[in-house]
Amino acid sequence: MTSARGCFITFEGVEGAGKSSNLAWTAELLRANQIEVLITREPGGTPFAEAIRDLLLRDQPEPVAPATELLLIFAARAQHIAQVIEPALAAGKWVLCDRFTDATYAYQGGGRGLPQAHIATLEQLVQGALRPDRTLLFDLPVAEGLRRAGKRGALDRFEREEQAFFERIREHYLARQQAEPARFSLIDAAAPLDEVRERVQQVIDDIVRGYATGAAS
Amino acid sequence: MTSARGCFITFEGVEGAGKSSNLAWTAELLRANQIEVLITREPGGTPFAEAIRDLLLRDQPEPVAPATELLLIFAARAQHIAQVIEPALAAGKWVLCDRFTDATYAYQGGGRGLPQAHIATLEQLVQGALRPDRTLLFDLPVAEGLRRAGKRGALDRFEREEQAFFERIREHYLARQQAEPARFSLIDAAAPLDEVRERVQQVIDDIVRGYATGAAS
Repeated sequence: MTSARGCFITFEGVEGAGKSSNLAWTAELLRANQIEVLITREPGGTPFAEAIRDLLLRDQPEPVAPATELLLIFAARAQHIAQVIEPALAAGKWVLCDRFTDATYAYQGGGRGLPQAHIATLEQLVQGALRPDRTLLFDLPVAEGLRRAGKRGALDRFEREEQAFFERIREHYLARQQAEPARFSLIDAAAPLDEVRERVQQVIDDIVRGYATGAAS
Repeated sequence: MTSARGCFITFEGVEGAGKSSNLAWTAELLRANQIEVLITREPGGTPFAEAIRDLLLRDQPEPVAPATELLLIFAARAQHIAQVIEPALAAGKWVLCDRFTDATYAYQGGGRGLPQAHIATLEQLVQGALRPDRTLLFDLPVAEGLRRAGKRGALDRFEREEQAFFERIREHYLARQQAEPARFSLIDAAAPLDEVRERVQQVIDDIVRGYATGAAS
């Protein structure tokens, strides 16, 4: 018996929006539905891709060219797809990924001002036809996200950017959600935790139902 | 007084063909002509780009996806161009670079079999209009190059490839030289050292003369 291809779900949002904890909770919901789940993250997800992530987040003794940052992110992504994401999906596992290419459009496109066309070129070159089946976008006012992220301790090279950088990121995320409403589920991450969880549960129930219908058809 | 833009000369060839020692000797020739010279290499050339080079050459605990290798090379190149090559050329220095994008076409295109179109896409994205003004291609039968490289001690991730890998690289280098004979100078690196040096001197004299004429016009 061959298993159906797994579902690829990405978790996106500004710093401090609760992506990671909601991702872990989503995995529990799916496992309660007897779905085999693989949790991963970007940039990273394999030992080699995590080494590239370290280069990206570490302070550097020189200014990092925006194109360098973009190419490193897609280098890590190519490795992650080849080693982890594609094999898992092909084996029928559901892949939950903390950030993916929407984050590149938001951070490098919106935040750093790199041309969207360059990102689209690399997306095509590295991913071929691979796109997330569904994306949960955790949206939050930037000041609140930064306040939450600041509580975590030392900030990395991205987290020390100005508020305007994160405002552009949030705007780009929201524009992408509006352009692809069928793929994106917008989640108000400023709401109380039990409301956020209820909304995540609705979204996941909807995905599982849709997947069961699609797989049966 | 503004200085004329410097000349960008790259040194290419299979392992053990004598690129690096001839590059150092070329710098001496140019300096004897009162030309300010910057020596650099790829992948690398800045502290951050050298950190990317380390990732590329180091043994990895997992297979490195060909697209990952290609993107890391162009990530390092983008950094090298922004931090070193463009500022030096703009300041009127001549830049001598040990390997550049011809090596990517030869190694990742020829050696690894990546589509030339992918390399051309990244070349355009990262370099814009920047291309070497002149390229010295040191050509050598593969077996002889490997014999010479083997004498240097421990081999890196590339140097341990099969002979057929290096045959494809040599073929791709020669095909590029034939497609762009005005940019490339082919140098028979199997010849005795004094003959190689004489040929390099002819090529460099020719470049310096052409540059003086071009700058005066």
